[in-house]
Amino acid sequence: MCVAQTNIPSWKSKLHEIIYEADTPAGKTFDIGLLLVIVLSIILVMLESIPGMSDRYYWEFYTAEWIITIIFTIEYILRIVVINRPSRYIFSFYGIVDLLSTLPTYLAILGGGHNLLFAVRALRLLRIFRILKITRYIGESNRLLTALRNSRAKILVFLYAVVILCVIMGTIMYLVEGPENGYTSIPTGIYWCIVTLTTVGFGDIHPVTPLGQFIASVIMITGYGIIAVPTGIVTSEFNRASASEIPVNTQACPYCNETKHLDKAEYCHNCGNPLNE
Amino acid sequence: MCVAQTNIPSWKSKLHEIIYEADTPAGKTFDIGLLLVIVLSIILVMLESIPGMSDRYYWEFYTAEWIITIIFTIEYILRIVVINRPSRYIFSFYGIVDLLSTLPTYLAILGGGHNLLFAVRALRLLRIFRILKITRYIGESNRLLTALRNSRAKILVFLYAVVILCVIMGTIMYLVEGPENGYTSIPTGIYWCIVTLTTVGFGDIHPVTPLGQFIASVIMITGYGIIAVPTGIVTSEFNRASASEIPVNTQACPYCNETKHLDKAEYCHNCGNPLNE
Amino acid sequence: MCVAQTNIPSWKSKLHEIIYEADTPAGKTFDIGLLLVIVLSIILVMLESIPGMSDRYYWEFYTAEWIITIIFTIEYILRIVVINRPSRYIFSFYGIVDLLSTLPTYLAILGGGHNLLFAVRALRLLRIFRILKITRYIGESNRLLTALRNSRAKILVFLYAVVILCVIMGTIMYLVEGPENGYTSIPTGIYWCIVTLTTVGFGDIHPVTPLGQFIASVIMITGYGIIAVPTGIVTSEFNRASASEIPVNTQACPYCNETKHLDKAEYCHNCGNPLNE
Amino acid sequence: MCVAQTNIPSWKSKLHEIIYEADTPAGKTFDIGLLLVIVLSIILVMLESIPGMSDRYYWEFYTAEWIITIIFTIEYILRIVVINRPSRYIFSFYGIVDLLSTLPTYLAILGGGHNLLFAVRALRLLRIFRILKITRYIGESNRLLTALRNSRAKILVFLYAVVILCVIMGTIMYLVEGPENGYTSIPTGIYWCIVTLTTVGFGDIHPVTPLGQFIASVIMITGYGIIAVPTGIVTSEFNRASASEIPVNTQACPYCNETKHLDKAEYCHNCGNPLNE
Repeated sequence: MCVAQTNIPSWKSKLHEIIYEADTPAGKTFDIGLLLVIVLSIILVMLESIPGMSDRYYWEFYTAEWIITIIFTIEYILRIVVINRPSRYIFSFYGIVDLLSTLPTYLAILGGGHNLLFAVRALRLLRIFRILKITRYIGESNRLLTALRNSRAKILVFLYAVVILCVIMGTIMYLVEGPENGYTSIPTGIYWCIVTLTTVGFGDIHPVTPLGQFIASVIMITGYGIIAVPTGIVTSEFNRASASEIPVNTQACPYCNETKHLDKAEYCHNCGNPLNE
Repeated sequence: MCVAQTNIPSWKSKLHEIIYEADTPAGKTFDIGLLLVIVLSIILVMLESIPGMSDRYYWEFYTAEWIITIIFTIEYILRIVVINRPSRYIFSFYGIVDLLSTLPTYLAILGGGHNLLFAVRALRLLRIFRILKITRYIGESNRLLTALRNSRAKILVFLYAVVILCVIMGTIMYLVEGPENGYTSIPTGIYWCIVTLTTVGFGDIHPVTPLGQFIASVIMITGYGIIAVPTGIVTSEFNRASASEIPVNTQACPYCNETKHLDKAEYCHNCGNPLNE
Repeated sequence: MCVAQTNIPSWKSKLHEIIYEADTPAGKTFDIGLLLVIVLSIILVMLESIPGMSDRYYWEFYTAEWIITIIFTIEYILRIVVINRPSRYIFSFYGIVDLLSTLPTYLAILGGGHNLLFAVRALRLLRIFRILKITRYIGESNRLLTALRNSRAKILVFLYAVVILCVIMGTIMYLVEGPENGYTSIPTGIYWCIVTLTTVGFGDIHPVTPLGQFIASVIMITGYGIIAVPTGIVTSEFNRASASEIPVNTQACPYCNETKHLDKAEYCHNCGNPLNE
Repeated sequence: MCVAQTNIPSWKSKLHEIIYEADTPAGKTFDIGLLLVIVLSIILVMLESIPGMSDRYYWEFYTAEWIITIIFTIEYILRIVVINRPSRYIFSFYGIVDLLSTLPTYLAILGGGHNLLFAVRALRLLRIFRILKITRYIGESNRLLTALRNSRAKILVFLYAVVILCVIMGTIMYLVEGPENGYTSIPTGIYWCIVTLTTVGFGDIHPVTPLGQFIASVIMITGYGIIAVPTGIVTSEFNRASASEIPVNTQACPYCNETKHLDKAEYCHNCGNPLNE
């Protein structure tokens, strides 16, 4: 809740509450309305990319694009106006995303090649990050993120080992199979090895020689075996998050205020006084 | 068990017990018989779809179809007759499924294009949901469902993040590879990204440019890493379900108030006094 | 250890110990020697299947085949001779496997088509099951098998749900994509659905229409999400196996002999007498 | 820290500290500098393998190769000079790797076919193992390795069972599908079975007959089900590693003998007496 300061006009603090906060009905409605416009603008960019679409429905796309751009521009200006220190918004991640997703349509007036323009227009997709903010309404996502953050270091070590394994095996496959079987260079061999180890298996490149197929089998079985590692890491982290909720309670010692006692504790482990009298 | 009410004819309550319940031998036999007919009708629809089959065995399919339809019709009428409030069955999920799987054969007499008719006839496959009811005989399925239901919110948050990731990466791949390499539109790019991130990897579309292959490698390794998340969620949920079943109860000793006794404990393991008097 | 009975000749009980048991040095040597011959015979069958091989090295294969067959025949006869009740071996699983892997070479003298003969000769591969017996030397495999056996019921319920899901989605894909895109029949559609849901993704059949690609995306994300279920089941079972080793000790009450007390127990939970005096 | 011995010149012990140890600023700088040169040399080998590259930038590659080789040679000589017992380094794993990655460029002067030389030059990639040493800076990797080492026996038993399953199913698929559908030999069938069971699914070979597709479906669902096993093993091992870290120690109260106190506990939670006097 925004505590109204005396030197800020009330309409400004009111608008600030609506635009930047989500704990009032008006703020929630604004958030949901904005999300709908973003989803709409993303669907528009997608449809426009389908061959034939942009030619057949030229005017529809043109109109919709301008409407959405004007809505985003108004929102961008409002966000700058109602905030006390505009620079804090303008140079924040979301401030840059908002600007980048508004500019392309204006640049289109200045002209430019179609392909480049479309690429720039795809910047509007960056707004999708705003949708991720919706997850803050879902309490579960916090526990998910905490578990992931805790296991980040271990997962990085694991992925690091996977990449080095792929460099070594990719080079061996390049030497064994050679350019005549599709392994045109070491980077291609590494790419194939990643495709195989992660059990994706496109099939655009695949071993042909018996030795290559044998090495590929070893890589595949390795990949099948080590997929267990990230799973084990994350699961263990989830379990610890659950476990830490079980045997230690939130009871505070009436003498020294020490918390986190075992459930069965009868005396405080810090000062030795009885916990319940 | 159906408690016979005085104003219901005994044959009706008897049939109700057979058709709607499964805890009498007759009810169980009816259930199993019905399941067999459903499985048979599903196999029939499958076989009919194989090219050449419906022409070669025209009369066999025709006869079998009518026999099954008549059995289903009799069952449908009986279910309506023996129930006290027929509307409760007719507008239930299974009531609609039962009707939809009976109608197509009758509609065939009125004529219509072959292809459309077959699509309608495939409705009979809906009856497969009835087979799922067999799982109620297996006690394990309840614990499975409970664990899945508890982790539903977290899994949805995860899948939501996966879809957004695919939208972003799919757009990037469309811009990098372009229509000349098979990425004909952004939705196609997103479809490819889902195929890759989930480690399915059909290979109908695959990156050709070095940059595209590099981004694809990143997507694959990401997919390999985050497959751990749903697994971690469900496993943690299963563990919690198991933990609550560990034979330690919440009974407190009337003498020393010690808790966490084994289920079969008769004396407190802390002070030696009897737990139940 | 075989306790020699008075009416059995000592050479017979000696041979029985070597052939059927593995806890003497001679028995262990026999087991390992037999395993080597089996692995050799399997490699022989494999090599013979490679095109051109059986023509080029005709006499080598012919000789090796006869040597191995004679070794297996001698072993088979010895096993019958040294056992007290031969029928118990002859009609056991391994007895039939041993006979089936010896017969083909003898049948070859009687003549017969090459292809059929090879198929029969591949029966020798059944001997591979004997190799599995080697795992009894590895203590870990028992805990693995116990955990798998305990989670069997839950995994079957899960696979049952997966198969039904594949039947429904396979039929929908057949109706959506149709024979012109490779989905020639409902069984083909189900086959494709299994290939996709299990994240194998051969790419021999793949959706072409936008609607088909959308449904495929849903199937893939579903498959990515539910792969967590069997993992969760097995992991939970492994954890329970580990957990049951922790808080309950093997201490027996000196008064009533009751076991499985909590680690911290001071009094027997069955008779109330102190556990340690 | 190297404790300087009287009979070793100070410059030698100083260099030893820099080259072989990493706990001084100079040692750390040396380590990081060396890693950069190794990464550079690996990228060089990769780029050289891209078709056209080695012709276009012949002199650039030639110069860079010699510079890197000279740096590696100096490092190799220094490592021998500063160590007390050179044989311990020369015949160690890293000593051989260092020598093998220096030799190829010198061999190139003596001449030799291009292809063979490149293969030899790829030996320089072996230096990548040195990069793995960087993980010692990350504490997490030790816990990862411990968990993997503990579950090694179980994972090997599992992979052993997977390989035998693949031999049996691969032979069946060879007999069912035959050479006309791409299953040219039993080893090819086994290779295909590994590709399928590990859910890689290249699609270079795939079943065509209905019976083959049915068996493939069974293999795929099996693979989907048993991927849970290694995951369960590793997760269970991680959990055990975590459990042993739960801040409850094995200290026993000197008054009431109660155990499982929190690590930070100073007074017994059962009787209130101080734990340490």
